[in-house]
Amino acid sequence: MVIDGQAAAVIDPRRDIDVYLENARRHGANITHVFETHRNEDYVVGSRSLAEVTGATVLHGQAGRVDHAQPVTDGEHFDIGKARLGVLETPGHTLDSISLTLADRDFGDAPVAVFTGDTLFIGDVGRTDFYPERREEMAGKLYDSLFDNLLPLGDGVQLYPAHGAGSVCGSGMAEREFSTLGYERRCNPMLQLDRNAFIRTKSQEHHYQPPYFRRMEALNDRGVEHDALPRPRALPPGPFAERCSDDMTVLDLRTPEAFCGAHIPGSLSMPTAVAPGYIGWLVSYDTPLGLVLDDDADLDRALRELYRLGYDRVEAYLTPGMTAWEASGADYAVVPTIAASTLKQRYEQGEDFVLLDVRGIEEYEAGHLPDAMHVYLGHLPDRLDELPRGIPIVTFCGSGKRAAVAASLLKRHGFDQVENCLGSMAACQAVGCRITD
Amino acid sequence: MVIDGQAAAVIDPRRDIDVYLENARRHGANITHVFETHRNEDYVVGSRSLAEVTGATVLHGQAGRVDHAQPVTDGEHFDIGKARLGVLETPGHTLDSISLTLADRDFGDAPVAVFTGDTLFIGDVGRTDFYPERREEMAGKLYDSLFDNLLPLGDGVQLYPAHGAGSVCGSGMAEREFSTLGYERRCNPMLQLDRNAFIRTKSQEHHYQPPYFRRMEALNDRGVEHDALPRPRALPPGPFAERCSDDMTVLDLRTPEAFCGAHIPGSLSMPTAVAPGYIGWLVSYDTPLGLVLDDDADLDRALRELYRLGYDRVEAYLTPGMTAWEASGADYAVVPTIAASTLKQRYEQGEDFVLLDVRGIEEYEAGHLPDAMHVYLGHLPDRLDELPRGIPIVTFCGSGKRAAVAASLLKRHGFDQVENCLGSMAACQAVGCRITD
Amino acid sequence: MVIDGQAAAVIDPRRDIDVYLENARRHGANITHVFETHRNEDYVVGSRSLAEVTGATVLHGQAGRVDHAQPVTDGEHFDIGKARLGVLETPGHTLDSISLTLADRDFGDAPVAVFTGDTLFIGDVGRTDFYPERREEMAGKLYDSLFDNLLPLGDGVQLYPAHGAGSVCGSGMAEREFSTLGYERRCNPMLQLDRNAFIRTKSQEHHYQPPYFRRMEALNDRGVEHDALPRPRALPPGPFAERCSDDMTVLDLRTPEAFCGAHIPGSLSMPTAVAPGYIGWLVSYDTPLGLVLDDDADLDRALRELYRLGYDRVEAYLTPGMTAWEASGADYAVVPTIAASTLKQRYEQGEDFVLLDVRGIEEYEAGHLPDAMHVYLGHLPDRLDELPRGIPIVTFCGSGKRAAVAASLLKRHGFDQVENCLGSMAACQAVGCRITD
Amino acid sequence: MVIDGQAAAVIDPRRDIDVYLENARRHGANITHVFETHRNEDYVVGSRSLAEVTGATVLHGQAGRVDHAQPVTDGEHFDIGKARLGVLETPGHTLDSISLTLADRDFGDAPVAVFTGDTLFIGDVGRTDFYPERREEMAGKLYDSLFDNLLPLGDGVQLYPAHGAGSVCGSGMAEREFSTLGYERRCNPMLQLDRNAFIRTKSQEHHYQPPYFRRMEALNDRGVEHDALPRPRALPPGPFAERCSDDMTVLDLRTPEAFCGAHIPGSLSMPTAVAPGYIGWLVSYDTPLGLVLDDDADLDRALRELYRLGYDRVEAYLTPGMTAWEASGADYAVVPTIAASTLKQRYEQGEDFVLLDVRGIEEYEAGHLPDAMHVYLGHLPDRLDELPRGIPIVTFCGSGKRAAVAASLLKRHGFDQVENCLGSMAACQAVGCRITD
Repeated sequence: MVIDGQAAAVIDPRRDIDVYLENARRHGANITHVFETHRNEDYVVGSRSLAEVTGATVLHGQAGRVDHAQPVTDGEHFDIGKARLGVLETPGHTLDSISLTLADRDFGDAPVAVFTGDTLFIGDVGRTDFYPERREEMAGKLYDSLFDNLLPLGDGVQLYPAHGAGSVCGSGMAEREFSTLGYERRCNPMLQLDRNAFIRTKSQEHHYQPPYFRRMEALNDRGVEHDALPRPRALPPGPFAERCSDDMTVLDLRTPEAFCGAHIPGSLSMPTAVAPGYIGWLVSYDTPLGLVLDDDADLDRALRELYRLGYDRVEAYLTPGMTAWEASGADYAVVPTIAASTLKQRYEQGEDFVLLDVRGIEEYEAGHLPDAMHVYLGHLPDRLDELPRGIPIVTFCGSGKRAAVAASLLKRHGFDQVENCLGSMAACQAVGCRITD
Repeated sequence: MVIDGQAAAVIDPRRDIDVYLENARRHGANITHVFETHRNEDYVVGSRSLAEVTGATVLHGQAGRVDHAQPVTDGEHFDIGKARLGVLETPGHTLDSISLTLADRDFGDAPVAVFTGDTLFIGDVGRTDFYPERREEMAGKLYDSLFDNLLPLGDGVQLYPAHGAGSVCGSGMAEREFSTLGYERRCNPMLQLDRNAFIRTKSQEHHYQPPYFRRMEALNDRGVEHDALPRPRALPPGPFAERCSDDMTVLDLRTPEAFCGAHIPGSLSMPTAVAPGYIGWLVSYDTPLGLVLDDDADLDRALRELYRLGYDRVEAYLTPGMTAWEASGADYAVVPTIAASTLKQRYEQGEDFVLLDVRGIEEYEAGHLPDAMHVYLGHLPDRLDELPRGIPIVTFCGSGKRAAVAASLLKRHGFDQVENCLGSMAACQAVGCRITD
Repeated sequence: MVIDGQAAAVIDPRRDIDVYLENARRHGANITHVFETHRNEDYVVGSRSLAEVTGATVLHGQAGRVDHAQPVTDGEHFDIGKARLGVLETPGHTLDSISLTLADRDFGDAPVAVFTGDTLFIGDVGRTDFYPERREEMAGKLYDSLFDNLLPLGDGVQLYPAHGAGSVCGSGMAEREFSTLGYERRCNPMLQLDRNAFIRTKSQEHHYQPPYFRRMEALNDRGVEHDALPRPRALPPGPFAERCSDDMTVLDLRTPEAFCGAHIPGSLSMPTAVAPGYIGWLVSYDTPLGLVLDDDADLDRALRELYRLGYDRVEAYLTPGMTAWEASGADYAVVPTIAASTLKQRYEQGEDFVLLDVRGIEEYEAGHLPDAMHVYLGHLPDRLDELPRGIPIVTFCGSGKRAAVAASLLKRHGFDQVENCLGSMAACQAVGCRITD
Repeated sequence: MVIDGQAAAVIDPRRDIDVYLENARRHGANITHVFETHRNEDYVVGSRSLAEVTGATVLHGQAGRVDHAQPVTDGEHFDIGKARLGVLETPGHTLDSISLTLADRDFGDAPVAVFTGDTLFIGDVGRTDFYPERREEMAGKLYDSLFDNLLPLGDGVQLYPAHGAGSVCGSGMAEREFSTLGYERRCNPMLQLDRNAFIRTKSQEHHYQPPYFRRMEALNDRGVEHDALPRPRALPPGPFAERCSDDMTVLDLRTPEAFCGAHIPGSLSMPTAVAPGYIGWLVSYDTPLGLVLDDDADLDRALRELYRLGYDRVEAYLTPGMTAWEASGADYAVVPTIAASTLKQRYEQGEDFVLLDVRGIEEYEAGHLPDAMHVYLGHLPDRLDELPRGIPIVTFCGSGKRAAVAASLLKRHGFDQVENCLGSMAACQAVGCRITD
């Protein structure tokens, strides 16, 4: 968000737009422009919604057709008070990707910062796998955008990318939240490669495309109308159970430990840290959802996160929490947890079990436990047939969160000997398990 | 807290006094008087601390000697702006118990409300078991205080007692937070009894006196100096484990489900709802404490609650939460949970196990599962010898929280076949377990 | 708002209903019932809006026809969890007035509290002047409702009226926020009268009916659809001035001192404490409004208050505050302030000026300065012709706030020798001005 | 504040250190290092206080002796988690000035950011006037620090200076809050000069040194012990007036408009925006202070700001605000305000008055009204003798705030014909007053 004096612009707004409205109000500013750096596919953008409420103009790179936006082309600029936002076409991540330079007109035209969307991150660059048949071409475009358009702006230009560490849009991002073109030129590993090596590396990268990306694209293409957060009903165990047996899918947003300790049979574990990357593989947008939370006070935040990801059919939540379910006499299920040291013993004693590693293929290939079966968590719903029955399955990931999701999915589909390795790879490395690659 | 104009009085302040200071400031008032309705034994009062900071006078019933307070006698009154607080000696709960009437001088001298401390609650009356050899005498005094001093104030006097539902100071309290003398006279079961029946009932009541009550009395006698909340160190798993193996006791404040799913070996489960009633039985004030939380953001609230209960030696907390412990490769322990329906099956199939019911004796006697062994949770540390080894023990309480504490205690003392019945009595009633009394 | 378990009811909700939704959510409850104690005329109720959002049923006394509500009759009751709300018809303030008793079913059927709407207040009773030709009849009905329906509920019933001190619905209300039927029976001056004296007193009472009362009634009759708070534009001085010269009325919400120090020519002083009682006399609902605030951060609260009063055409606010206006070089106006001691001198020295007292007639008759001209602030717009020109006018009220509003109105209509007596009657009494009646 | 994992460092902490403690707690981190970039002279630093509470080490450039700190020298570095802070000696502003480079060890040793203290700002450089007899030498040192030590770190290094726009430590600072060494190298006017021109410019710069700078230095030399914010008493008008007539100085923190409308006779206007730059000239640290606020809710913020500036003898505040004073019948004073257009008329009509311009000499020399008398606001207390009596004085500054302070000072010293030009220079330019230089 760029605010100067009475004017404000928002770049790639999220769906719950109240934060922008409140911020503008606090600064005594009106939102006049909304920029989209590209057609986002990983969350629902609030551009159309924000434009409806404020009367702002939505602007989008001319290479992408978006119903609710005006096209902008390289070299155009827009003044927001004394700040000037300039359009730089930087295709590669998508064809319509643009970056936006920011100049402080009090000090001249030189850019002081640049908003790079999904083109350049802190410590990484954007994905180039969205047009599967044109991966090399897109990688080349990205290289050219970086080296011909962005880096020439000068080392001393500050960098504001669209994502930080933890996003599904790149794996090498730094935890730091600030950088400059100069620092990236010098330290970003991808910017140390020559054009051929860059293209080769990017073409070989493996990224998963959750099915929800398609849905996001469709939604973001036509824009989402302004609406309010969903208002689910507070339901005690009985009515909650009835809605479940009807058609509602239960998402359990509590910690993996609590899920393993006791959960509603058939519910899907979805710790909040895991949801953005995986929910789109596992939950349809059209299913009514019921939530299980540790504390009713967490509801608002949970609703916002699901809403940004396109899930607005949240119809109920269990109240007051899992305790109510237990006290109602309803059955609950558990997932035994096993520590890395126990897992190591089982290996050493040659016990019979399947270790199901649900991490991404690149994580898996960088090191895994011997004979671990690999199925990416996002692919698990479609590959359940491949899993053996009648033998214990230990779910496994980086730290135990995705493993909890996998365990919940297996239980939901009738696997009954499922254990979860809380700690997973991190713990196995710490206790010295044998690791192969 | 009574505020009128620039004057304010606080009745029975809690130890973390910032809320009173802030409230006074917001109303532009100075705190001039602090009243103690009696020598509290269930939490650390902030009277002395508040007096140190504001210069207010502390006032206490003349029958109790409290170093930092002035004695007040029946009939005295104090004007706080246009409000008038009058002293009414109402012994029974303790010898020094007073109530405080509140009159609005704009409308005359008639009392509009009364602060009854631990003398009269909404739906119950105070305990009379603090002088074991004088139980009947104290019950008689309480009866007289109620019928000769309080009720004659008039039906239309609003009631502000010192505790609400959930306190260890009475078991029949209503969940409602407001009442009047008239409503209590008509609906409070204890006020329907004649003097003899009242004395008989009160004398036969069973109350537990946590050992911490003695400590509180001693602290509240001399008053606690103003100090700051403890500032524990944030420790990652390694250093946290080292402090544990040194002398630190670990309190796990997470939900029972999460504790059962995975916990640090040797840690004590202490869900926040359970702590006020039981921590004083289980944890010494002199032990350094380490905390395990779901979320670092919960720290402040946890520290405040422990601090009010007299625990100010909190030295560390595990960061970032239990996940860090698991990922460090350190071992963790679990407590299998069993639902009421499973427990019922075990009964029906005659399986061999001990059901350990840790509720209060009155709860137990009002109905329990067949052959359940009863040991009150507070007494468990001293009665561990009575428990059988080599046979599964299922811990059991009203809903599963105290049972989790009991399970943690058993595990800590080497019992290895321990399960926790989440749902406990509430669930057993719902699924139709056989219940005896 | 009554909440128990998963159920909640709201009584006489205000228009900005987010507070109820948030409260229900925090308690894990669903709002199922909305009660109206009568057709409110002094603020816009949020019943219909709340029903739209939650699906709750709106309930209204059967003697009043309200499109969006179901009629209820004496003796009906509604269970909200373990709480029971019972309908008691208590006509007098209006024909459709009802009270709602609250029982705690855990303790039987006896009422523990009663919501009395505008029938009985703390220290006063409701107005009976809404049917001018039936004042005695309505006063009689009110007396009967109080003595035959409410007081018999018992002294020990807690009282929750619809308004507290400061409301336009009564002048004798206590500042205390709690009371009981017993205390009122004993101390409320109106309840000390016999039926004839009561009717005589009520019939002779003088109340002003702001024109907005009619508008409120009309709005509340058909119910207001759920909508969002207005979103005014932040405007710097130039564009703000343009909108003013177009058709916008400027409300200056700052303190009277700041208004007197410097204000936009033609703007209307409207300190927040004064707005509820007077804005409905002075500002049409159909005029676009522009606001002047001390701080942009105050905007949200100001918008809410105007919105509840039915003003939703707030189109702009000056940013960043009055400072911007001054620095723009635009002219500003002042109102000289004079202290009581100076006023006293002027009287003593026989200076020539008009003292314009804009308080209510009852305030005026209880004591005023010699030769003060009385025009009630609400009537001032229609009586400007009566004021002399070419002679200094000193505006005067209880403390100087309403006087500031009056001064702004005079200046707006071309009176140029206007001064404001900050302190007004309160200060004049303190310095010993001569007072007549 | 630099936080990574469990470690945190604070650079130049302010005196009210709760914000750092809270931030550390929220991140689960312990504060281990506190850096001082130099001996601050414009606010009280919280280093010693923070060290007392957390056990952190305080570090200070070796050229300055500070009792509570360890000396650090060029080239030393300190690891805060994966972040590395490196010491760079950058004398010029003071002899002991250091800058701190920040490297992200995940990406190597290259600095990604630099904390420059008062050496380099966004759009300006530090003052070099603290050793009056060595101005050229210090300016040369600063030039060398900038060009030999800082800029060689590379264009792509982000800049975090100690002050932003509005500070008394430089006049050319940008309103933007971020920059890079590259952008500054290219756009910062001071970095465009060669060494000689730089020294010449810096030596000729005019800066005021408020007397409080000396006091700050003394305080910061020995460090300020940890203490709590002052807790002033809430006083109604009578007792407040008594304390005034005793020895208390009244600071009126309301807006200039409100002050001009009505204020306590003898009080000093001190709008919050003006206090940091001027209070040190006008108010002794040893005087007891009483505050007048618009709203009691503003008290906390006001106390913090005064506390940071070294004023901790705030003993009372008037409650509830100025209204209480007026209603008490006490006299109040006013300052007539005049708009720029009126001022222009007076010039044109040749009226007899003195325009007292209290801005800085550089502002004055850049353009002022004809025949304006210049006395810098900070010097006004010592130069009151030079002002004429018996003739109207119009106080004047940039926008009217400092002029209000000047007006209050004149009134306090018996000048009775004082007016304040709200809008001042900004407004005069807008309305086309004749301006000379």
